[in-house]
Amino acid sequence: MDIREYMLAMGKAAREASVTIRRASTELKNDSLHAIATEILANRDRLMIENEKDLVAGRESGLSDALIDRLAFTDASFSSMVEGLQQVANLQDPVGEISDLAFRPNGLQIGKMRTPIGVIGIIYESRPNVTIDAASLCLKSGNATILRGGSEAIHSNRALAGCIAAAVTRSGLHPAVIQLVEHTDRAAVGELVKMDRYVDVIIPRGGKGLIERVMRETRIPVIKHLDGVCHVYIDADADREMAIAIAMNAKTQRYAVCNSIETLLVADAIAPDVLPELATRLRDAGVELKCCETTRKILSNICETAIATEDDWREEYLGPVLAVRVVPGISEAIAHINEYGSQHTDTIVTRSYASGRRFMTEVDSSSVLINASTRFADGFEYGLGAEIGISTDKLHARGPVGLQGLTSEKYVVFGDGQVRQ
Amino acid sequence: MDIREYMLAMGKAAREASVTIRRASTELKNDSLHAIATEILANRDRLMIENEKDLVAGRESGLSDALIDRLAFTDASFSSMVEGLQQVANLQDPVGEISDLAFRPNGLQIGKMRTPIGVIGIIYESRPNVTIDAASLCLKSGNATILRGGSEAIHSNRALAGCIAAAVTRSGLHPAVIQLVEHTDRAAVGELVKMDRYVDVIIPRGGKGLIERVMRETRIPVIKHLDGVCHVYIDADADREMAIAIAMNAKTQRYAVCNSIETLLVADAIAPDVLPELATRLRDAGVELKCCETTRKILSNICETAIATEDDWREEYLGPVLAVRVVPGISEAIAHINEYGSQHTDTIVTRSYASGRRFMTEVDSSSVLINASTRFADGFEYGLGAEIGISTDKLHARGPVGLQGLTSEKYVVFGDGQVRQ
Repeated sequence: MDIREYMLAMGKAAREASVTIRRASTELKNDSLHAIATEILANRDRLMIENEKDLVAGRESGLSDALIDRLAFTDASFSSMVEGLQQVANLQDPVGEISDLAFRPNGLQIGKMRTPIGVIGIIYESRPNVTIDAASLCLKSGNATILRGGSEAIHSNRALAGCIAAAVTRSGLHPAVIQLVEHTDRAAVGELVKMDRYVDVIIPRGGKGLIERVMRETRIPVIKHLDGVCHVYIDADADREMAIAIAMNAKTQRYAVCNSIETLLVADAIAPDVLPELATRLRDAGVELKCCETTRKILSNICETAIATEDDWREEYLGPVLAVRVVPGISEAIAHINEYGSQHTDTIVTRSYASGRRFMTEVDSSSVLINASTRFADGFEYGLGAEIGISTDKLHARGPVGLQGLTSEKYVVFGDGQVRQ
Repeated sequence: MDIREYMLAMGKAAREASVTIRRASTELKNDSLHAIATEILANRDRLMIENEKDLVAGRESGLSDALIDRLAFTDASFSSMVEGLQQVANLQDPVGEISDLAFRPNGLQIGKMRTPIGVIGIIYESRPNVTIDAASLCLKSGNATILRGGSEAIHSNRALAGCIAAAVTRSGLHPAVIQLVEHTDRAAVGELVKMDRYVDVIIPRGGKGLIERVMRETRIPVIKHLDGVCHVYIDADADREMAIAIAMNAKTQRYAVCNSIETLLVADAIAPDVLPELATRLRDAGVELKCCETTRKILSNICETAIATEDDWREEYLGPVLAVRVVPGISEAIAHINEYGSQHTDTIVTRSYASGRRFMTEVDSSSVLINASTRFADGFEYGLGAEIGISTDKLHARGPVGLQGLTSEKYVVFGDGQVRQ
């Protein structure tokens, strides 16, 4: 069978399965999730053997140590997959929730019911445990899923998909509720993103190259985020210690994550007070600074700094580098963030009611925080229980996307025979 | 200036304007809406003269009487535009509403704030009062708007845009908050839908050809509905009189609207009881019937009927034609609707608790009703106050789209210095 036919058959099966999973009871979906966990534990040895094949192939093809690490199954991978499945099973089922149900003057009672979207295509790279994370969230939200993992994890993913298929079928769900694309050819992605008849939404998870390719090739709605150029703005009125603690945490708690900051903005009134200590602590943590002229003057006796260019304000370093800019005040900080940021996550540190209110209203990002680290922008920290990713799109889901973002809403109307006049 | 540059300049201006309208106060936006109404009334004579130019051109180019009627300004058009503006001014401002605000264990208070989307492109045909309807909803929801009306209404639209510009500028809003594309060349649409840097969402309003063209050419998110193939299903357990009244209303109250039904489904147990009277009344109303074999047998002594083909189940007649099919029961009715329908609006008439519950859960349409006419699927009837259209998409807005559908939500987080461990 050629790739086109292979993918179309998969799409058709997913559409059929979506009709059954959409009306599956919460109990049945939870049983399936627990069954997948049981199956993974029961097949641990086989999963390790298959994973080893990927590791060998990866080393042969010269994958970096960091990528090999992400690929490898460890005790921690197994506990995390099993715990993840149990957590998703414990989450409240969003399907069928009715909100805003109210009577109209004519006696019609109108509200919105949360429904599955239908078929979700997930395209991801490297870490094979995404197979389990994504499958579990899509299943719990009543969707059929087509998973397309990276070729470097194909043996691991196939083995995991085998566990899923066995568990799903045994618990009585349609076997095509969760399918894995076993073709490792890049053309399979091309076909997947073209099947708008069978796929309702595409979620790409991976590097910018992957996401840009998907966006270029598809007309199916995409839930994604491209960049995480996040900011902390230290307002003139900020508490000094809080400002330093939040800026340090937002930059250094982890580097390679999208909700760490890339640029620090500081109001000029407070800059001489906070920047020297902050720069010292950042330097001690090994962070390289790229600074505006004013910042460089303030820090001239403290440490070496590089000059920030226009490009630095748009750069997602994803590492121990921080751009620093002194601004006259909150207006310029908001303008900077809306101009150079990626509408991901931005924080103000302030004691001013007016500044907090303005920042919250005018910063056009998926998460806007006052007096808290940007590192909290995350489905678990926000209490969603789990996340499929963070969306910087404005339509549908924005910010951390959990079960709710994997559902739609339809209007439901309860009448007693009303006809329109 | 060529069309490309002209459109890019418009997009850039709209993006600039969106930054100001996003933070405009409710009072300022309402003042603008009232100012537009005042301006329209003050320029009534000029508007009539410009409208006459469109009518003359329309008659010369052979537009149908129906289209000329839709184009013509009448007393009713003026009252409807002015009342519409006042109604939108009276609606609650959705921007800034915060929902689901709750404390996390670490003291962070997290919720979602409703925000404008940014820049909305509206592409529409014929009726010039859409210029005012669309502009008012987008303005109230804090968005900048680029309007692209049909060439047949260009003089009327230009005159209306003149009123809008005068009112908007006088009330102190950015002049590019609402812009009209004055190029009547079709290439302008092509440019508009390509400006993903400046336009956040495209709303096409018009015939299927227009909507399909937009979908083909754009990668910008689209809010749209293509077809309205709506159904009434009369369950075995239906109240006979209610069933007949709802079916009649859903078909005959208006023909050329998307929420009228195109197919009637009847459970076989009740078909001999309801179909003869219903067919008689439909015939008296001038409705042509296209029927399945069983229906034809039941009606053989009542009236002439045509045979329904497979194509009839997918057809949107938008006129006095109704397809009728007898089905064994609710399972087949739901399967028919999900297979042949357009996921727009569907009703069950039943006295059965179980049937109502199943229909509501399993019919995958933007509006699902029990014991009420499909004709209620409408922003005004649902209490949204106004609507920009009805969406049959599943992502973002689904069903009638009012002010809320023209907004997005961002996460807002109120902290006291929390950093992530």
